[in-house]
Amino acid sequence: MSAPRTIGIGILGFGTVGQGVWKHLSEKQADLESRLGVKLDLRKACVRDLKKKRAVKIPAGKLTKNPNEIIDDPKVHVVCELIGGTTKARELTLRALRAGKVVVSANKALLCEHGPEIFAAVRQHGGQFLFEASVAGGIPIIKAIREGLVANRFELIVGILNGTCNHILTRMGVDGLSFADALKEAQVLGYAEADPTLDVDGIDAWHKASILAWLAHGKWAPSNRTLVEGIRNIGPADIDFARRFGFALKHLAVIRRDFKANWMTVGVYPALVPNRDILARVTGVNNGITLRGDVVGATTLTGRGAGGDATASAVIGDIVDAIAALTGNTNSGLTADSLAARESQGKKVRMADLPEIVSPFYLRLSLLDKAGVSEGIYRIFSKHKVSIARVIQYEHPNQGRGTVTLSTYPVDELKMSKVLTDLRRLKTVLEEPVVLRIFSPES
Amino acid sequence: MSAPRTIGIGILGFGTVGQGVWKHLSEKQADLESRLGVKLDLRKACVRDLKKKRAVKIPAGKLTKNPNEIIDDPKVHVVCELIGGTTKARELTLRALRAGKVVVSANKALLCEHGPEIFAAVRQHGGQFLFEASVAGGIPIIKAIREGLVANRFELIVGILNGTCNHILTRMGVDGLSFADALKEAQVLGYAEADPTLDVDGIDAWHKASILAWLAHGKWAPSNRTLVEGIRNIGPADIDFARRFGFALKHLAVIRRDFKANWMTVGVYPALVPNRDILARVTGVNNGITLRGDVVGATTLTGRGAGGDATASAVIGDIVDAIAALTGNTNSGLTADSLAARESQGKKVRMADLPEIVSPFYLRLSLLDKAGVSEGIYRIFSKHKVSIARVIQYEHPNQGRGTVTLSTYPVDELKMSKVLTDLRRLKTVLEEPVVLRIFSPES
Repeated sequence: MSAPRTIGIGILGFGTVGQGVWKHLSEKQADLESRLGVKLDLRKACVRDLKKKRAVKIPAGKLTKNPNEIIDDPKVHVVCELIGGTTKARELTLRALRAGKVVVSANKALLCEHGPEIFAAVRQHGGQFLFEASVAGGIPIIKAIREGLVANRFELIVGILNGTCNHILTRMGVDGLSFADALKEAQVLGYAEADPTLDVDGIDAWHKASILAWLAHGKWAPSNRTLVEGIRNIGPADIDFARRFGFALKHLAVIRRDFKANWMTVGVYPALVPNRDILARVTGVNNGITLRGDVVGATTLTGRGAGGDATASAVIGDIVDAIAALTGNTNSGLTADSLAARESQGKKVRMADLPEIVSPFYLRLSLLDKAGVSEGIYRIFSKHKVSIARVIQYEHPNQGRGTVTLSTYPVDELKMSKVLTDLRRLKTVLEEPVVLRIFSPES
Repeated sequence: MSAPRTIGIGILGFGTVGQGVWKHLSEKQADLESRLGVKLDLRKACVRDLKKKRAVKIPAGKLTKNPNEIIDDPKVHVVCELIGGTTKARELTLRALRAGKVVVSANKALLCEHGPEIFAAVRQHGGQFLFEASVAGGIPIIKAIREGLVANRFELIVGILNGTCNHILTRMGVDGLSFADALKEAQVLGYAEADPTLDVDGIDAWHKASILAWLAHGKWAPSNRTLVEGIRNIGPADIDFARRFGFALKHLAVIRRDFKANWMTVGVYPALVPNRDILARVTGVNNGITLRGDVVGATTLTGRGAGGDATASAVIGDIVDAIAALTGNTNSGLTADSLAARESQGKKVRMADLPEIVSPFYLRLSLLDKAGVSEGIYRIFSKHKVSIARVIQYEHPNQGRGTVTLSTYPVDELKMSKVLTDLRRLKTVLEEPVVLRIFSPES
């Protein structure tokens, strides 16, 4: 076997996303290297102010104020463009692509305004431009459209693509705040900028919608043929109507395609979504996207839309894809290297023991209906120090038995199995108890 | 440019999934070929009965009863193993892998029971084994874990992985059916087998959970250290408890990992999920999976879990990945070829005209509070033949004005803009109307 190739990575722009990328790449370097069969070389990060205090640890020699030290470094193969804006970012992106490098970008405005120019450079010079991070940060939506669901033509793509709008509308709809108060709160929490125009007037969502439409249908939607509306006009009467008739107010990006008439339409606007739809359940700063494909039907992806870490996750996903492509070692199949890495990883893991597995429980007990029965039951819970959260007791007159359903506070599996053993021993417990775990994926 | 390479594809097993793969690959052949820069050759499909009537069109010469005509054909590069079972399927899979071919499989039992042997063959002979279709059909969950979210370590993976259980529990929880009636209905609808054991006792979900756990953590969970429970014991008192306290009853697969104590646990069981969680909203035969990663936070993917087309979509996604890897033309980056294909595709699309865009609308009107105002409003709707679905009217005494909120039946954008133009002309309409679209991604 030949020595592993070294892949150099440079980062332009060292805000929360850039720092997140550096941090997580450093922390997982060994794991990623063994999966990819390469050495990773975190070359440099370009900043505006060398002396600024930063949350992430980085050697002083790795910082530069000069982007050329990254763009012109022949040892840098992958450039992460995280500076934002469309002037300097465009110039640096094009220079990197013309040098045949891979550019990984979170810059939706850049892609929307200069997409054709950027991809012309890709085609001409053989580099790559990857942009998973530009739409719905933590949700791998670009990859889903481009790869996982490649068998499909999408007649509908509809998404909540702006977390700021969604947070404001959630606070208005669920908690009764006014637009002004909800906006103020979002600003205090750091979810909205001092000038919230890009978010609340729909520009940000429009950029993202435009990227998804191009990806799915190959056409950049002209802005003069697109409906772009924000959420400033939403008021209490709208919230009231929505609530009465079972809708949630959401700011949606809607991309429809008619394959027979051969048109597409892109719109960004506040809309009423029936509560039964999953998108109605996407609350707070989260994003969610439903794809309706001709083969697969409806698939919905939800998760964090923005924030340094979610976006960094997407950037790193792209970096890994780029490296797989550069080394011809695509990891879409489980290659020999990545299988070996997975195997050695697996050897370090053991199965959990019962006391390590904790959740609240639900129990249904069928009990003899006579005095003192309840006390006997509760004595067992108290002996094992298991706290009961809720109880419903049902009588079944004429049958001489009752039913108790109850939930507990979190308790480990071992303790719970002891409770169950004791319960089964009671003559007053007439049937095998029904046991369910209570599970909240989001807690 | 050299002539494009031809990639041969063979299908073992020609049930609904196999036929779906053949149908959609045929229909989209030109598009896929231009994206991938290869020629696709649908070589043969292996069936049990040559004379059986089939929904999909396939030349008689393309059918065979002899799997060797596919496995031993040097022109077949990609074998789709869709026969199910673990004996014949194992033998054919291993033979194909030992010949260095790519095997695309939907066979979760095979992977669970013979995973180490299969991947040893992959490592030794340089083929690929791809299995997106084995877990949650239409949801690209394998790809999300392996690629899109590769920056993450997953402390929690929790999913609704069995559509039959979810359909039964939905009918019990939402519509009050008994387990027996809900099961009978699922069997009539074709969602459950005559012998429903694999589904309702949790075996199918356990296979899928085991695959996800291995993919995320590199370890095959031993079955004697795993909790596998079905849903046969769920009764009305459980449904009642869930409803009263805001839970949905779901059959979950739960994979937890503690990276400090270095354990993992895999369990499959019915559980109570708080209604606020997105998984509580995954109803009917759908599947849903929440991944909690250390970088990205919680991401949830939902969609059809089974059915010929959803599974075919996953199989085709894998075939495309395999071809990209075979040709070194990975499509994770947008390659020159795929960019050119997208561009020519985009040139055929036009933007929709207003009469082509249809949805129900919501309007809020601020009106002068005097006799005859309502009539003037409704006359405009009736003139343009727009039907009103719902109305709420509010008076604002002392202010001399009222508010009307209303929704329409579906109407096109042009018609609606004419209604709005007429409304704006009325002296009794005091402010610019607020207009929202009503949107249901799932309708």
